[in-house]
Amino acid sequence: MADNAFDVVILGGGSGGYACAFRAAELGLSVALIEKDKVGGTCLHRGCIPTKALLHAAEIADGARESEQFGVRATLEGIDMPGVNKYKDATISRLYKGLQGLVKARKVTYVEGYGKLVAPDLVEVEGAAYRGRNIVLATGSVPKSLPGLEIDGDRIITSDHALQLEHVPSSVIVLGGGVIGVEFASVWKSFGADVTIVEALPHLVPLEDEASSKLLERAFRRRGIKYELGNRFNGVERTESGVKVSLADGKQLEADLMLVAVGRGPVSQGLGYEEAGVRTDRGYVIVDEYCRTSVPNVYAVGDLIPTLQLAHVGFAEGILVAEQIAGVATTPIDYDGVPRVTYSEPEVASVGLTEAKAKEKYGEVETLVYDLGGNGRSQILKTQGSVKLVRQKDGPVVGIHMVGARVGELIAEGQLIYNWEALPGEVAQLIHPHPTQSEALGEAHLALAGKPLHVHG
Amino acid sequence: MADNAFDVVILGGGSGGYACAFRAAELGLSVALIEKDKVGGTCLHRGCIPTKALLHAAEIADGARESEQFGVRATLEGIDMPGVNKYKDATISRLYKGLQGLVKARKVTYVEGYGKLVAPDLVEVEGAAYRGRNIVLATGSVPKSLPGLEIDGDRIITSDHALQLEHVPSSVIVLGGGVIGVEFASVWKSFGADVTIVEALPHLVPLEDEASSKLLERAFRRRGIKYELGNRFNGVERTESGVKVSLADGKQLEADLMLVAVGRGPVSQGLGYEEAGVRTDRGYVIVDEYCRTSVPNVYAVGDLIPTLQLAHVGFAEGILVAEQIAGVATTPIDYDGVPRVTYSEPEVASVGLTEAKAKEKYGEVETLVYDLGGNGRSQILKTQGSVKLVRQKDGPVVGIHMVGARVGELIAEGQLIYNWEALPGEVAQLIHPHPTQSEALGEAHLALAGKPLHVHG
Repeated sequence: MADNAFDVVILGGGSGGYACAFRAAELGLSVALIEKDKVGGTCLHRGCIPTKALLHAAEIADGARESEQFGVRATLEGIDMPGVNKYKDATISRLYKGLQGLVKARKVTYVEGYGKLVAPDLVEVEGAAYRGRNIVLATGSVPKSLPGLEIDGDRIITSDHALQLEHVPSSVIVLGGGVIGVEFASVWKSFGADVTIVEALPHLVPLEDEASSKLLERAFRRRGIKYELGNRFNGVERTESGVKVSLADGKQLEADLMLVAVGRGPVSQGLGYEEAGVRTDRGYVIVDEYCRTSVPNVYAVGDLIPTLQLAHVGFAEGILVAEQIAGVATTPIDYDGVPRVTYSEPEVASVGLTEAKAKEKYGEVETLVYDLGGNGRSQILKTQGSVKLVRQKDGPVVGIHMVGARVGELIAEGQLIYNWEALPGEVAQLIHPHPTQSEALGEAHLALAGKPLHVHG
Repeated sequence: MADNAFDVVILGGGSGGYACAFRAAELGLSVALIEKDKVGGTCLHRGCIPTKALLHAAEIADGARESEQFGVRATLEGIDMPGVNKYKDATISRLYKGLQGLVKARKVTYVEGYGKLVAPDLVEVEGAAYRGRNIVLATGSVPKSLPGLEIDGDRIITSDHALQLEHVPSSVIVLGGGVIGVEFASVWKSFGADVTIVEALPHLVPLEDEASSKLLERAFRRRGIKYELGNRFNGVERTESGVKVSLADGKQLEADLMLVAVGRGPVSQGLGYEEAGVRTDRGYVIVDEYCRTSVPNVYAVGDLIPTLQLAHVGFAEGILVAEQIAGVATTPIDYDGVPRVTYSEPEVASVGLTEAKAKEKYGEVETLVYDLGGNGRSQILKTQGSVKLVRQKDGPVVGIHMVGARVGELIAEGQLIYNWEALPGEVAQLIHPHPTQSEALGEAHLALAGKPLHVHG
């Protein structure tokens, strides 16, 4: 048993778990990382990476379809789904190999198997016990469904199944207009499917600033992606050829299949958490701002805890926990300062507070919207959208919201601006390269600082 | 004559000139902007914007050509150059209209015509005189040639002609491996031409960090773009079907045409500058760090002065001058802090000092290279390259150098890091969105701060 004692035992090898393992090992701690499937978890195998591969294939398809607009003579003949999957799987496989290499290089003890917490300092994996001075719970999440809505994996599917499809459906109903639903809707439309999104809330990507939601809705309308907003799902029945979905207002929609994208729920049942005294709430493990659970020396990170379900949040939480255990000074994560990206066409990206939340928090705020119509590179890409800034009255920028092709890559700069509490004038005096899309962020700050350059009105 | 007296008279309506005009007008000054051709100048009509449109058409063509790798069945049939030009010209035209609207909205007096400085406070435009309390010279630049090398506009051309070509040449020799040469080489290769670059210096993009040059050379080699480095141009003769170029080492190259891309020279001859007492050096107007010439109240900005020939530098210089004239407190531009982008495939982007220059300035430096092989989004894009950081020993990051598809959009964040003199640890604690290419910048800072995440070795 002594051989199986570690400074840190981590249950779950996804983004949060492996980041914690790597950082702990770097800091000289002995680490066991337990994973029932594959290191990399949802993000690498069933989430971020495969969906972004599909979205890039979609971009290639759109480019060929619209090539004439750019003077390029190309013909889009169709989508070869097995080919798309081969590309996607090869991408995953390359990154997976890299990650396995890192596990070895960092001298992390990797345990493949289904682990359970059997005491506050003990994880059992198929009969073998791993004792940890510290335990980190990182068992992640799985797609959720609605009460009474049965996923059959054939006509009524989750994102897990959607990533394995060997054909492009001719029509799809996407239940849920959040990030996952919107990304799949975008891919399938680019691949030639007829797509309808059903969202109970009044807007697509309802957690974003309302202005971003509206711009995305306008862009989707132009792309021919249909949506039912503020309309509830009532039920679904299988038909000869697919599914028939009924909505609260009586409307009925038919399609080849329905993707259920109503969110992801924590994986915490049957793992011994509550028995060991770890407090949970609706399945989520409850933690304080340092990711400490109710049991001393037991931490939890990633999708398992009720913070933003994002891989980069998992990384940050994993690192935070590793550094605490190693006795390095740490500060809690400012979750408002975490950038969020929806990788649809167009993309939606943000950091900081929405206008509505900023008003709640600060009372008076100022906003500025810079239209990408004035941005040369965006015109070259033929994309529409905007950069919206929210600042505390006479104070720093507290929210940055963007919509447009490729803006997900621009929010990293926004993230520095937010986290460094920059005043508009401080950003305005810096020089953005011309002609890039990043200039739009510079122009927005110039305008908000009272010295607009390429701004109308 | 009194009607024709202004606070500021600006000679030249390119990036530097119109930015100065807009800012001066905003600050309540009366402004005359004199332009012999079209407002927007080289950047909008013959530079940044049209070349980036060609490069985007090239990206669309590459996407279709390589579509099978992504599971998309598309066929590239060819390039319809009149179609490409239509797209390019429509983009220019839309931005040009916007700019004309801004000139009106800001109440700038726009004078179309060929202006000359006839006294330190007087510009004459085809017989009419415009008196300025302040004069700003912003007459820009034109493509240079080499001594004895005659541009015929047919087989031996500059970028001005290259942007008007109505066909894709079957083969091209590009004389000059700087930004302009490399961008055209990239476009023509994507469009199907056989391309050879001739550069007298030992590397492509020789002003960049040597590591970036080498990565670009490797990428171009993979793309089948040929280059002769450290080899001088000896002469060119026209043949039946094109040109025959001889190099210093005796090698001879034949092609349809030759693009002369050996740089751009200032437009200052015959404009009355020297007669009015304005000091020049090899045609460049000499200024101090506030863009002041040797004559009081006469300023010069943009490609006309020997600073970086970049549109965004022109913007910044124009704004600097306008604010000075209006009595606003200003600080000189840190030219090292200006981001530089080469928009080829792959792109090259940088800010701050190269490793070599940082060593000269600081003695000991540390560097870190993060390979895009570890970056998920770059893997999805199937691009290769890296992020290289240079820091002052135990000090802030003083150089950021990137190579890879689309990295030009990432340098804006690098620019904040450089200009805000960030320590690696300060950037490392911030969270970049996954999976973006911008993460590579975050990972590089994590590694340089001693806490590598997705880093091998």
